[in-house]
Amino acid sequence: MHPFDQAIQLTATAPGTYQAHTSSAYTNLVGPYGGVTCAVMLNAVLQHPDRLGMPVALTVNFAAAVADGPFTVTARAVRTNRSTQHWVMEASQASGVVTLATAVFATRRQVWSATETQAPQGMPSPETMVRRPTLKQPSWVQQYDMRFTEGDVFSDFKGQEQPDSRSSQWIRDDPPRPLDFASLASISDCFFPRIFLRRRRLTPVGTISITTYFHADEAALAAQGERYLIGTARGQKFHNGFFDQSGEMWSDDGQLLATTHQTVYYKD
Amino acid sequence: MHPFDQAIQLTATAPGTYQAHTSSAYTNLVGPYGGVTCAVMLNAVLQHPDRLGMPVALTVNFAAAVADGPFTVTARAVRTNRSTQHWVMEASQASGVVTLATAVFATRRQVWSATETQAPQGMPSPETMVRRPTLKQPSWVQQYDMRFTEGDVFSDFKGQEQPDSRSSQWIRDDPPRPLDFASLASISDCFFPRIFLRRRRLTPVGTISITTYFHADEAALAAQGERYLIGTARGQKFHNGFFDQSGEMWSDDGQLLATTHQTVYYKD
Repeated sequence: MHPFDQAIQLTATAPGTYQAHTSSAYTNLVGPYGGVTCAVMLNAVLQHPDRLGMPVALTVNFAAAVADGPFTVTARAVRTNRSTQHWVMEASQASGVVTLATAVFATRRQVWSATETQAPQGMPSPETMVRRPTLKQPSWVQQYDMRFTEGDVFSDFKGQEQPDSRSSQWIRDDPPRPLDFASLASISDCFFPRIFLRRRRLTPVGTISITTYFHADEAALAAQGERYLIGTARGQKFHNGFFDQSGEMWSDDGQLLATTHQTVYYKD
Repeated sequence: MHPFDQAIQLTATAPGTYQAHTSSAYTNLVGPYGGVTCAVMLNAVLQHPDRLGMPVALTVNFAAAVADGPFTVTARAVRTNRSTQHWVMEASQASGVVTLATAVFATRRQVWSATETQAPQGMPSPETMVRRPTLKQPSWVQQYDMRFTEGDVFSDFKGQEQPDSRSSQWIRDDPPRPLDFASLASISDCFFPRIFLRRRRLTPVGTISITTYFHADEAALAAQGERYLIGTARGQKFHNGFFDQSGEMWSDDGQLLATTHQTVYYKD
């Protein structure tokens, strides 16, 4: 079993109630990598027998640090319409609720479509690039093969404060794994905190809330398979302890698969 | 009482449970203007005796059309930490849950801060500009004084399909009202659906989920008062029935007060 599938595995104990367990393959400095937590919350809906259609929007609020070990996940369909369905999900441990999330699922119809945002231009082929070193990094970083064209957070970490926090990169699971909604939810949280790029130094941080909008349907996921995705992100405002950043996940043939936004606590 | 204050008025019937009522001053084509719904959901936390600090993130999922008339709002603190607090809110009518929302509140400390995004450049003073006509528009549009420098949705509505959906405008309540967190939550949903700008024609639409990140603190709100804000927005991807758009709300002296993102259903 791929470590990602192991990390998001859910065992149903009642309709909409599951047992889960943190994964040593996806640890961050404190608790699990947030992307895997997003995938677990989404998976609780994906596995639900009442689920309608595919994900359009996912918001995950990180209420408290998840302790290593088991946790319980619940998913409840708050409202089911003809073509959309609204969900609320919670993850709990002995300390109480650790993660709170909502999702909108929907069926899609083929209608007029267009992409307005532009993908990063001039990305060299990932095969010609060097993989970002993962030595002494949290284990989740080792689960992703990342190759940066700009904004690799640790490439020049003693430099001066930077005017922007843009980054562009290739990324895929290591070992490779075909893209699906759960892994797209996870990979959409791959962008290092923009404050590290701006300030070229570490400070304690923690994502408070992340929202991902899915533009990929099953066909786009199948077309992507296990090839590299392009990811790009930038910061917006850093203000007295919280900043927000936005990112995009692109297929290697130029389809925008997801857009993602988050607000992050920072200490100083 | 200002019509906005009337529209978001809550009467507590138990701790965290309120009675509310839709407002004829803020109707949209179907049901109430989504921005006022956002403000009502946020207000349920703002009015809660257990509330800690000020809003940092608000996500509102529009689960079903809100019928004209009364509705019930609940707000529950899911987790309270030392400096952050996580909330879930629901609005219900006889038909069931109509709105599902989450919020993160927090206390802020003065630390290193910076704005990376840039405000629209070269905006002429609003006093030198013409107010956007509101004749035959839904009542909510009449409650906002909007003055566009680009991307007024109806200015050239029989034109050809456009390559982008950017808009920039001044906006304030009419009659003027000092900015607060509730009105900032509402005004952050003021951006017309980007598909109208791209296609230069109407199609049935409905916001499914909106997330607003608050960068303003009480001092920034007080400094803004009832003067005009700058709003700017753009679309990202329109794909088989759902598109996403992002916006920014700026003070007239160049402070980024909020960033906002939403995904919207469209019919064709």
